[in-house]
Amino acid sequence: MKAPRPPRQGLVIVNTGNGKGKTTAALGVLFRAWGRDLRVIMLQFLKYEGARFGEIRAAEKIGVTIRPIGDGFTWTSRDMESTIALARHGWEEAKRLITSHNYDVVILDEFTYPLHFGWLETAAVVAWLQAHKPPSLHLIITGRDAPSELIAYADLVTEMREIKHPWTLQGLTAQPGIDF
Amino acid sequence: MKAPRPPRQGLVIVNTGNGKGKTTAALGVLFRAWGRDLRVIMLQFLKYEGARFGEIRAAEKIGVTIRPIGDGFTWTSRDMESTIALARHGWEEAKRLITSHNYDVVILDEFTYPLHFGWLETAAVVAWLQAHKPPSLHLIITGRDAPSELIAYADLVTEMREIKHPWTLQGLTAQPGIDF
Repeated sequence: MKAPRPPRQGLVIVNTGNGKGKTTAALGVLFRAWGRDLRVIMLQFLKYEGARFGEIRAAEKIGVTIRPIGDGFTWTSRDMESTIALARHGWEEAKRLITSHNYDVVILDEFTYPLHFGWLETAAVVAWLQAHKPPSLHLIITGRDAPSELIAYADLVTEMREIKHPWTLQGLTAQPGIDF
Repeated sequence: MKAPRPPRQGLVIVNTGNGKGKTTAALGVLFRAWGRDLRVIMLQFLKYEGARFGEIRAAEKIGVTIRPIGDGFTWTSRDMESTIALARHGWEEAKRLITSHNYDVVILDEFTYPLHFGWLETAAVVAWLQAHKPPSLHLIITGRDAPSELIAYADLVTEMREIKHPWTLQGLTAQPGIDF
């Protein structure tokens, strides 16, 4: 891979809201960044290890890492301590990636959930990012219910709002290649 | 490329609103669909032919077509007739792709603008789609100001709402690989 030009200013981007497109837009940035030879990685906080979603298959094909680090559970987990421990482990891994200088773009997919559920303390996470995120690194965080401290810290926040949804309207199931 | 399984039900997806992520989420679907060996193409209605955005570079690398068919102008065009003619030509091309059975996913990027500006009649476009879109084809349309007839026709509509934007806040310029 060619050495990339360092980005002029790393943005902190949050995709939140109850609609579709939060993870998908982050995937679009991953793809676009790869198109410009930026070094990009995505950690998926809630998806279980071993997931074979379309995005993971696609990323493998282009040599970009999308790493699921969850167990597929959230507040419905039958082993809450294990789910929480995985999220905390994921944050340690995220910190390592963010400070590694091996990436131009780091995506923390569904990272708002461990914050929203209180598994990680948002103020402490933001304080760590303020102190340690390299200025040129783009950081993208997705998920519903982004905490206000995270929104205050971010440069760019978009809310994906559900206007119309086929599952609720027509009982359709998720479509492979479109939804996952 | 492997022959894909036909999708069970083609969705009509609209990404609209004044925020970021409309095109980017469509790119994420393109990437994910490609990861599942679906056949996908994107027409970009307003971007000028010859554009070399990150997504076009990325798509070339994986053998997916993203074709800019505009002249880069909208209501600011100095040659309005030419801009409108290009949009109408783009719609003819879109119709050809939609009925070709060569694609599982067709993305019409920024297609809401020719509708919103009245360069194409929304009712006629929707009527054509209702009559001719293959049931299994996923169709994705992006852009601000999606007309209500289009929203009524769509299965899934998401509004990307700008909560916080760095250009307005801090005068930052768009970042290559992230924004284009």
